[in-house]
Parts: sequence; C-alpha cells; structure tokens
Amino acid sequence: MLPIDDSPLCRDGKALILAYDHGLEHGPVDFGDLPESADPERTFEAATHPAVTSVAVQKGIAEAYYPSYEDDVNLLLKLNGTSNLWMGEPDSAVNCTVDYAAELGASSVGFTVYGGSNNEIEMVEEFRDAQEAARDHDMPVVMWSYPRGQGLKNDTSDTTIAYAARLALELGADIAKVKYPGSKAGMEQAVQMAGPTKVVMSGGSKTSDREFLQSVKAVMDAGGKGLAVGRNVWQREDPEALLDSLEKVIFEEASVDAALE
Amino acid sequence: MLPIDDSPLCRDGKALILAYDHGLEHGPVDFGDLPESADPERTFEAATHPAVTSVAVQKGIAEAYYPSYEDDVNLLLKLNGTSNLWMGEPDSAVNCTVDYAAELGASSVGFTVYGGSNNEIEMVEEFRDAQEAARDHDMPVVMWSYPRGQGLKNDTSDTTIAYAARLALELGADIAKVKYPGSKAGMEQAVQMAGPTKVVMSGGSKTSDREFLQSVKAVMDAGGKGLAVGRNVWQREDPEALLDSLEKVIFEEASVDAALE
Amino acid sequence: MLPIDDSPLCRDGKALILAYDHGLEHGPVDFGDLPESADPERTFEAATHPAVTSVAVQKGIAEAYYPSYEDDVNLLLKLNGTSNLWMGEPDSAVNCTVDYAAELGASSVGFTVYGGSNNEIEMVEEFRDAQEAARDHDMPVVMWSYPRGQGLKNDTSDTTIAYAARLALELGADIAKVKYPGSKAGMEQAVQMAGPTKVVMSGGSKTSDREFLQSVKAVMDAGGKGLAVGRNVWQREDPEALLDSLEKVIFEEASVDAALE
Amino acid sequence: MLPIDDSPLCRDGKALILAYDHGLEHGPVDFGDLPESADPERTFEAATHPAVTSVAVQKGIAEAYYPSYEDDVNLLLKLNGTSNLWMGEPDSAVNCTVDYAAELGASSVGFTVYGGSNNEIEMVEEFRDAQEAARDHDMPVVMWSYPRGQGLKNDTSDTTIAYAARLALELGADIAKVKYPGSKAGMEQAVQMAGPTKVVMSGGSKTSDREFLQSVKAVMDAGGKGLAVGRNVWQREDPEALLDSLEKVIFEEASVDAALE
Amino acid sequence: MLPIDDSPLCRDGKALILAYDHGLEHGPVDFGDLPESADPERTFEAATHPAVTSVAVQKGIAEAYYPSYEDDVNLLLKLNGTSNLWMGEPDSAVNCTVDYAAELGASSVGFTVYGGSNNEIEMVEEFRDAQEAARDHDMPVVMWSYPRGQGLKNDTSDTTIAYAARLALELGADIAKVKYPGSKAGMEQAVQMAGPTKVVMSGGSKTSDREFLQSVKAVMDAGGKGLAVGRNVWQREDPEALLDSLEKVIFEEASVDAALE
Repeated sequence: MLPIDDSPLCRDGKALILAYDHGLEHGPVDFGDLPESADPERTFEAATHPAVTSVAVQKGIAEAYYPSYEDDVNLLLKLNGTSNLWMGEPDSAVNCTVDYAAELGASSVGFTVYGGSNNEIEMVEEFRDAQEAARDHDMPVVMWSYPRGQGLKNDTSDTTIAYAARLALELGADIAKVKYPGSKAGMEQAVQMAGPTKVVMSGGSKTSDREFLQSVKAVMDAGGKGLAVGRNVWQREDPEALLDSLEKVIFEEASVDAALE
Repeated sequence: MLPIDDSPLCRDGKALILAYDHGLEHGPVDFGDLPESADPERTFEAATHPAVTSVAVQKGIAEAYYPSYEDDVNLLLKLNGTSNLWMGEPDSAVNCTVDYAAELGASSVGFTVYGGSNNEIEMVEEFRDAQEAARDHDMPVVMWSYPRGQGLKNDTSDTTIAYAARLALELGADIAKVKYPGSKAGMEQAVQMAGPTKVVMSGGSKTSDREFLQSVKAVMDAGGKGLAVGRNVWQREDPEALLDSLEKVIFEEASVDAALE
Repeated sequence: MLPIDDSPLCRDGKALILAYDHGLEHGPVDFGDLPESADPERTFEAATHPAVTSVAVQKGIAEAYYPSYEDDVNLLLKLNGTSNLWMGEPDSAVNCTVDYAAELGASSVGFTVYGGSNNEIEMVEEFRDAQEAARDHDMPVVMWSYPRGQGLKNDTSDTTIAYAARLALELGADIAKVKYPGSKAGMEQAVQMAGPTKVVMSGGSKTSDREFLQSVKAVMDAGGKGLAVGRNVWQREDPEALLDSLEKVIFEEASVDAALE
Repeated sequence: MLPIDDSPLCRDGKALILAYDHGLEHGPVDFGDLPESADPERTFEAATHPAVTSVAVQKGIAEAYYPSYEDDVNLLLKLNGTSNLWMGEPDSAVNCTVDYAAELGASSVGFTVYGGSNNEIEMVEEFRDAQEAARDHDMPVVMWSYPRGQGLKNDTSDTTIAYAARLALELGADIAKVKYPGSKAGMEQAVQMAGPTKVVMSGGSKTSDREFLQSVKAVMDAGGKGLAVGRNVWQREDPEALLDSLEKVIFEEASVDAALE
Repeated sequence: MLPIDDSPLCRDGKALILAYDHGLEHGPVDFGDLPESADPERTFEAATHPAVTSVAVQKGIAEAYYPSYEDDVNLLLKLNGTSNLWMGEPDSAVNCTVDYAAELGASSVGFTVYGGSNNEIEMVEEFRDAQEAARDHDMPVVMWSYPRGQGLKNDTSDTTIAYAARLALELGADIAKVKYPGSKAGMEQAVQMAGPTKVVMSGGSKTSDREFLQSVKAVMDAGGKGLAVGRNVWQREDPEALLDSLEKVIFEEASVDAALE
C-alpha cells in the first residue's frame, strides 16, 4: 500500500474503474445483448465521463485505442487474464509486462490472484514481480482478489471476501477489487481487514439500476472506496445515465433515490 | 494492434500470406500428391507473385532459402510450431527468437495460440514475450488463433471463431489468422470482434478453385482483410494461376467468376 | 550462520520476534476473538516495547505501516507465505524479494521451509536465493523450519524438531524458528543440533499466561535464544503485560513466578 | 542450414563423424566385447584417420582428451545426452553449453531431438537456444533427429525417417543424423525432405564389414552426405581398416567391392 | 576432467575427503551413538589431520565453522543435498551457488547426481551449471555419482558402479565418488570406465577398523585414488587413530596389517 490519493486512479480518495476485459475473459457472449458493446471505442467514450477514474483493459485494447484517449482517460492496464475456453484449475496468463504497460501510458496496473487455487503459489509470485516492477514506475496496483478453486466451497461468504481483502493488503496491493459479499456488514468486515488498502466492489453481472446502486451505496457506507464496474455500464444502452448516478453515490454521498433522480 | 498498412505485410491494407510451415506441422504427407512441393524453393518462387505480401516459414527454411529471395519476397517468420508425431494436449514449441527472426530479415512474425488448451496459459505468456520483442523491432505480429483442446467441442462454430479473433485483439496481435467458420455471417462476427486487428482466413486443406475462391470472397465481403494460404497454392501444379485469381478477389474486389476467367 | 549478536535482531544475543503474518497465513479467523487485532498498527505499537527485538510481517503490511515506525521498531520481513484457502502439499509463495525488503527498511528476513514436503527441493532452492541475497545486504536470515507433508507423521516429535533445527544450520540460517517439542529435553536436543544457529520457539496458539511463560522458560533453560510470538501477544487485550513478563524470562533470566508478579 | 562445406565438419561437402558418446548413453555394456574400447584415447587415435571429419563426444571426454588432439582432430561437441539407467519418456539432458563447447575448441555441436516424445516441445526449445548460440560462434549444428516416444509405433519407417530429416531442415540444423530406413529408396525420401540440410546415416549396432558398407553405399547413392559411425568402428579390433573402406565409399565413390579390397 | 594433482583436493594425486553432510542428509539419527559427533567443530578438528585433503560440508556449516579453520583445512563445499524427511523419487536441492562457495573459501565443490532417477535430466542440467561455474573459478568438481530410482534394481552391482564412474567422466567431473561394489574386481571396472577421472570410494555405514581398511586397500589396489569417509571417522571415539591408519593405506601403500599396528 502506497499513498495513491493523488494518483490518477483516484478522485477524492475514491475510485471508479470502468472494466472492459470481458472480451478476453468471457468472449463474444458478453456482447450478445448489445452488439455495439463489442466496440472498445464505445467504452473509451464512456470512460471520458468525469466519474470514471480509470479504464481497465488488456494490452491489445490499450495498444489500439488508448493513443486516441490518452488526454481524456486514465489507463489501468490489466496485466493478466485467461479465456473461458479453458476450463482448468483457476489460473491467469500474464500477458503484459509492467514495463510495456508503462510504455503504453498506463498510470496503474491490475492483476488477478485466485487465492485458494492450486495455482495460488505461482500467481502470488507473478504478482510479486508485477507489484515490485510497478513500484519502480510509481504505479498503483489493483488486485482482482478472487478466491476460487478446488478447495473452496463458497467464494462470496463474508469470511472469504474478508480474506480476499486481507490478501491484497498483505501482498502489497493498493486497491483490492472484491466481489460484493451481499451485505453492508460483509463489506465492513472486508474493509476492516484491508486496513489502508482501498476496497472496491467488483460490479458483476448486469442488474437493474436501483439494485445496482443500492449495492454500491452499501459498499460506500461500509467504508468501501468505490467500484470497478463493467457490464453494468457498457451493456446499457445509455452508459452515461448510470455513470451520472454512480458519480452521485460514490463521490457526492448521495442517496440512491437522489442519484436516480 | 499497431498501424501496419504501410508495412511489408500489407498491400492496400490487405494481406495474402503464403504459408509453408507444413513440413514441420504435418510432415512429408502433405507433399505426397505433388512431390516437388517438398522443395521450399518452389514456394519461394510462388511468393514472388505480386499478390503475395509475405511468405510464412519456420526458421530453418528461412535460413536456407531467404538469402536468395530477400529482394523479392517479404519474410514472415513463424516463431513456434510442433510436429504431428506428437499427440498431446495442443502446444507448440517456440523454435525461434524474435531477435533471430530479425537477423534473418523477417519483416513480421507469426505465433500460434491454442486458446482453450491446457497449455493456453503458457502459450499466452510466450506470445507476450514474442509480441513485446516484436514491438522493439517494429515488426507486426500475426496470431494463428486456433481454439483447440480437451475442453473444446467444436472449434469452427461462429462463436469460437469470433472468440479466436477477439483473443488476437485483446492480446495485441496485428493480424488474426482464423479458420473459416463456414459462412460470411460467421466471418462478419469474427471481424466485428477483432476491431482494428485485421482478420485473415486460414486456407485449410486443398479444395477446388471455385470453392476456395468463394470462401475467400465471402471473407472479403465480411470485412476480412485477406488470406493465409498454403496447400491450396503450393499443392497445385500451377500456383501462379490461383494466385492471379486470388489477387483479383482480394485486391481488386473482383467476383469469383471474374477472377476465374 | 553469521555473527548476529550486534544486529538489530538481537539484544544480549537473544531475540523476541513479534510475528504478525497471520492475516496471510490464517486469514480473518485469527482476529475473530479480538477484532481490533486485525489492525496492524496495534501490533506495531506493541512492537515498540523494549522486549521486542523485531516485528515480522509480510511485504504489504511493511509498506503500509513501517514508515511510521522505522525509528522505533526493527523490521524482519517475512519473504514467503501462503493463504490457508489453499489445501495442497505444503508450499509457500515467495512474495517479496530481498532487494525490496531492504528497500522497505528491513534489517532481517524470514523464510519458511517445509522439510519433508514434496516441495522441499524447490523451497530449499528458493531459500538459497534469499539467503545469499540477504548476505549481500548483511541481513540475518530466520528460517521458519517446519517439517510438514505427506511423508511426515508427527511433526513435533523431539527428533523431527531437532532435525528442523539442524536443517537451519546446514542451510545457512542464523536463527531457527521451530515448534516447541513439548519438553525442555526436546528443546535441548534441538539446540544441540543447531550449533551456533540460534533456536527460538514458535509461539503457537494462544494459551494461559503461566502455561505460555513456562514453555518459554523451558526453552531458555534448554539453551534456546528466545521466542517468536504472535497470537499469544496480539490476541491479548493487554499485550504489554505479557511482553513485560517475557522480557523478564528471556532477557533477565527471571523465574515464571517472578515474571508474573 | 548455413553453408558448411568449408567448415572443419566437412570434406568435399561430405561428413564422416566418429561418434563416441556411448559411455553416457549406453554405459559399460557397449565396451564389453572389446574392453580397450572403453579408453577414449583409442577413439581419438582412430579419429586422426583422414576419413574422419570430426569426433563427437560429450563434454567430459572433450575436457580430458581433446587438448592432446586439437591439432589432428576436429571436435563436434554433443551438447545433450542421457544414461539408459533412466527409463522415462524419451528426453535428454543438456549437459554442456555452446559457449563452453567453444571454449573447449569445438568446431561444431550436436543435439538430440526426440520428435514425437512428450518432451518434444521442451527439447525443440532447448535446441533453439543451442542453435542460435551456435550461430553466434559460426559453428555448424548436427541434429540427432530420432522420432521416439509413446505416440510412435515404428521409428524407422520411410515416412518417419523422412519426417525426422525434415524436422532438421525446418528447425535450422545443418546436418540431420537419422537412422537408416532400410533401403536406398527410403533414404532418398529423407534426402529430398531435408533439402540443403545434409543427411547422414546413423551407424547403429555393429554388423559385418560388407553389410555395413552396403548400407553406407546406399546412403551415398541416395544423395546422403555421409555417416556418423560409432560401434562399427571402435568396437572393431582394427578401426583403421574399416575407416579406409569408408573413405573409399564416402569420399571416392568406390563400390563396396572396391572398398573392401 | 582437469589436472587436479596440484590442487588442495589432492596429495600425491590421491584424495581423502572427510564428509560431514549427514546432518542434512540423515538428520540427528546419525549422531545418536556418539552425541558429541553432532558438533561440527569435532569434525573440523579431525580434518586438520594431514591425511585429510579436504572436508566436505554444506553451506551453513562452512559459514559457521570454516573461518576458524581456513588456514588448516581445505574446504570442499557440497552444493546440493536433501533431508530424508522427504521420501520422493531421488532428487537433491541445490542449496549453494558456486560463486558463494568460492566466497566462503572453498577450493573444490561437490555435487550429487542420481543417475537413473526420474530427476536425472534436471540434476544433470544443474550439474552442468555448477561444473561450468566451477571451471570459471578453477575449482575441481567431485560428483557423488549414485545411481538410484524407480528404474533401478541393484545399485551396487559392478555394472551400475562402473556406469556411475563413467557418468562422472562423461559429464566432466574431476573425481567420481562411488559406492564400493564389494570387490576389487568391481572397483577395477569402475576405475577403467572413469579414465583420468579419479575414483574414490564412498565410505558408507560404520564398520570395524579392519573390515573398513580392507575395503579401502582393495580400492587402492584396484587403481582407486582414495576415499570419501564420514561416519567411519567421526562416529568413532578416536577419529585420529583411524585417520592414521587410512594415511598409511592410502598415501603410504601400507598393508592393512601394517596400518593397524
């Protein structure tokens, strides 16, 4: 954990990361309901919204699109990822080096760690390399901390999410991106465990505006520092409307009702 | 994805790659019907045809033959490959470094990724090293993107081919070489998923002139940017005739009938 | 083994290491009985007690908290660790390099070796790298020497603990942190095997003050050089009281009764 | 493939490699019939025969004996090898680096690749490193190309030997050392597949003079460029006599009858 | 094999290595009968005997004790080793680098290779690195050449021991440390196979003075160049007495009777 409040990843100490690595992780199926969402440009446009503190994409997307947006959007380069064509014990290929991320203009990096996977040992060692290289570039590190694997029964219990948040702190992540445990109380536990590492909620599948904002509000009330959102933004016909609402809930402490007005 | 329209790999933004790595991948059986096709010189001669934007071969073939053709042919060095004497879960040995490819005069490199294989993680990490090294040499990267492996039932469904094309974009390939999904609609989906990464069709086994040109035409109509062709050219008695036709379909937007005249 | 009596890790040739890597190794469950113990700052405060010769934490905790305590606390950076979400044959991820530990201000490093695990070979080779790098920085090395794994029936027998202590000497650790074998005689055997490598007892689960101090006293009487204690300190409402007692037993050769007064 | 006709490995574009790596690959049993054959000096003496273009040995033999023969014998250092005490899926340990081979005075290097083995991927990648390092030293590379492993039924069929020869060409070997497929026709196929990579026959077990010379003659008539011979020379009481005959068949295009006179 | 007669490892071309790596390889059980033998200092004292050409210990023992003996004892650093807590297919962790061994004052290095183990490939490649690094430091290399593993029935047959000796020669060891095959004839075969690589007998478990000296005498008569002895020296109440006898047998060509006087 390093002081990151003044980094491009944060605004008033909070973060709203627009995540768009689904083309690699899930493939075309995620774009099925709204075909134009397959176009990364649409997400980069959405990322120019003042609520978005960074856009999170894989190397190839950054290479192709970020040059046109580097003045208006902050880049969080997601360093590892895996297709869901592959069905083995959870793992993730490191498909971009930190040095190359820096060359592409990234101001922060992201890294998935599947605690509890048979590949935990290897992933944590790869995380070490990425984290220490990021320190050389003064780039904050966001850990996608997702306990998953053979030995793990329920990956969204309060205890598991709290453990996930703690792993991020112990291993040196600046932000822990964790699943929503389902309640404000669960999130409070995660926030407590993470100490100064900021906890942000992972957005998950698309839900209704109200339902989604309510979970975000619960996260903020629990001491969370924001959100990493993907499908709930770019799978919507009008991403801007939801980003307006999110801005109110996250940065202006508005109620869900006020944010939906 | 980097701008490659002005690179030797393209002509008018399109590519016709003459692939000749079959001696490694398939062995002598591919030369059985036309024994003289075993001689790489014959393929290099064909590659002097103005329709061919690059010839794709393995390191050893390049070492032995490219010095005589470096003024007339552009070299795409295929960096990995495997014999079919080996029957395990899909994988491919990296048998040439990017630095050595550059030394041999390559203007671009090629790399196979078997998404969905149990070796996907390792192959993607090897691709990362190759891709970033190629960037240092300003060499475009072509991904042979072939989903394959235990977890994969049908590797030419529209969805799988579209996913293959997307992987190429997400991981930073400039051109995605994918199997033909069997229809123009399938190819359109792949092209849409690949964004600015150019999609070229993988030629596959030898078929009739008309049938082959029709699939190429469908690819071009679907927004594809060309073709990587092997057996359909060099297994023919007269490679030049088909290359003439391909030139018309790919670079002159001719109909199949016109191209066959 | 190098001369470490004058290093920050020792006081009068003995060591009291306050270990706080439980958030990684055990997760939130260890903080359950005393929620404020989840806050690393509380442990760092306790570590300012003159009895504590070093605090042992993982990289992330050191990054976040040590800058505020570097004048008052000596840092032992624990270089490897694993969550208990993972259930495989004992292993531990190297999550911090020695160079980075030095950058964070560590004056010594810690490393777990599970002798007898199927991963013993790999762990010993990782230990080699850490140990030799630590020598370059003149940093003492503490081995968490815990025989564990498929081939091992009873990991606290006198013979096993003595072997654990010997491994630390043979492999070049300056301090061997071993489980308490249950008796003074067992500890004497371990001390004899370790030669000049100092043996410290690993504190284990929380017990009563008297019971705990009695085992520490036995260790000191057996020729042990101190203690690495975690839960028995920071899981207590008043860590300072027990540290006062430990100081008497370890550094002032007091009896347990005298130490409890 | 590089031009090697003027290298020490060739004489008039052909090669006669005296192979003596049997002490590693087969052990003492190969020296059983003729105990003095265990002495490497005897083989080095034989290698001074003008017919021998290089002697092929492992690192340790080169270290011990080559200093006395460097003026009279050319050294081909065999870079990998394995004892037959080990019975797993075919593999070979790289027991010498190319740099060290150069230091020992080698003018060429040899490397075994077991195409079709489950270790093919790894072996080909190790071959890549050796081949590219050899290029830095301008040293020709000889591939012991021996398809072998679980997936392989018959390793001396014409097709398999032809594939073996092709692998050598595709992967960048200058000479392919292959098993004799049993007929001139089989060898012609291998020679055709190898293109400019020279094909030499692997000598195999000891047979009669006439039988052996007949197979060598068939190889030369098929376009082969020589022989790598071991037991058929140094297991003989009088190696020189057979080398005289081989010289006639290989370099003077003599008939077997003439060579035996 | 390099000329080592003038190195500290030899006296009159012969070697008597006092081996004391049992604390790592076997653990406390080896010190059970004579508790003071657990103290490395006792072995270092014994090593000052003029018959001892080097003492062989692991890194940690060298670090702790060699500084006091560097004027009186030559150090052979054993670079790999494994505890017997671990029960897998024979393997050995490389726990010390050659560079660090040199820093510690070693004048030679030792390395175990288990030919025939499923780990033979890896061990031989690790041996390569150690051997070539030792050459850079002009340090002789002693191979503990112990065929062992699943595929191996009888590891002390004449043929196996002879193969073990040959592996040492082929792979570039200067001295081969092999088990006693049980007879002078067996040892002669090993010596013949090793060529200029010196063969020394591995001492094994403690036996009577006479029995032990008789086997040493047989080794010397067979052309062996000495002994690596451990338990037969330091498990004795009076190590000096046996060393006196060994000196006579090894360096003064005395009979066993004369040596026992």
